Amino acid sequence: MAVRTLELNVPTAGKSEMLDITGDIENALKESGINEGIINIFVPGSTASVSTVEFEPGLEEDVPRALDKIAPFGPNYAHHATWHDDNGASHVRATIMGPGITVPFAEKKPILGDWQQIVVIDHDTRPRERKLVLTIIGD
Amino acid sequence: MAVRTLELNVPTAGKSEMLDITGDIENALKESGINEGIINIFVPGSTASVSTVEFEPGLEEDVPRALDKIAPFGPNYAHHATWHDDNGASHVRATIMGPGITVPFAEKKPILGDWQQIVVIDHDTRPRERKLVLTIIGD
Amino acid sequence: MAVRTLELNVPTAGKSEMLDITGDIENALKESGINEGIINIFVPGSTASVSTVEFEPGLEEDVPRALDKIAPFGPNYAHHATWHDDNGASHVRATIMGPGITVPFAEKKPILGDWQQIVVIDHDTRPRERKLVLTIIGD
Repeated sequence: MAVRTLELNVPTAGKSEMLDITGDIENALKESGINEGIINIFVPGSTASVSTVEFEPGLEEDVPRALDKIAPFGPNYAHHATWHDDNGASHVRATIMGPGITVPFAEKKPILGDWQQIVVIDHDTRPRERKLVLTIIGD
Repeated sequence: MAVRTLELNVPTAGKSEMLDITGDIENALKESGINEGIINIFVPGSTASVSTVEFEPGLEEDVPRALDKIAPFGPNYAHHATWHDDNGASHVRATIMGPGITVPFAEKKPILGDWQQIVVIDHDTRPRERKLVLTIIGD
Repeated sequence: MAVRTLELNVPTAGKSEMLDITGDIENALKESGINEGIINIFVPGSTASVSTVEFEPGLEEDVPRALDKIAPFGPNYAHHATWHDDNGASHVRATIMGPGITVPFAEKKPILGDWQQIVVIDHDTRPRERKLVLTIIGD
């Protein structure tokens, strides 16, 4: 058994736009030297999430639209009074969706459905450079 | 420390109906030979989720009903234009809830509350055979 | 590689109020003797969640308010018919947000953003003593 901690840096667009990082995760696993186990993908930061999706243009619209119902972007957040900030909705979305996921892998490849990609969803109100932490544990 | 990867196949009903898999998880842990650690339960596929619930008939109605508010089944999804599909709501629900959970165990038993069961929630619009991946890591 | 399972007991307020447990997690990691890996933070119980947030007074209001939209507290839950209970909303929130998260750590410290804290969110309708299970796995 071994553990490897890696960093992955990606540019994101914000407003809950999704970014497909499946290829990066596949590369990290290939290079890790670990064959079978789990990979935890975590965002240090309080306005982004990690999940999976069938990554295609329709759902790239549908997922942010559903999040607009739970926490619409706009002025009505107590958070804004604290920092004179505009991203209360971003924080709320990130807390409800959570900061990361854990994905199984075998033969150095993530075990995913045929139409399932791993995505970072950046809820912030502006483009950012995001650091993700990948922790690979296995044999 | 050891890692074991298992597959669990279950028939699901769809439309976010929940299926109690606690007994299956208990059996997998018993047979794994690993005493203490974590079990990751993951759905390869982009229209289902894993979570916990007090599994009883009232909540079997209440949970899908709350998801209807976030992403109602119906025609208004850009996803449908991509594939002439009808399950945009299923994808959105799965992405927001995430594809899996990680549960601690000790003495080969999951550490759960007295009224807490582990469930697969299949959001798809039709019954399916679902494959789940169980990854057990521990001592 | 080693695994350590610990228990953390905290008093919670209910109604989705968030409790910052970052200090407790830092202490657990310091005392674990494990340097690098992941920590799983899990609530045995079906009416609470774990997530991360920028813990400040504004978001302490905003997060519960967004959850009120998904599952408002009140009488309209089938769960209440089963147990003559009043916490249907609490269960629904817990199932949608999930029962725990997994956080990476290095040099015995959780890898978090500068403005990111780990919180328990107790959705129940009354104050409780909550037991959390912490599972630390790493080298």
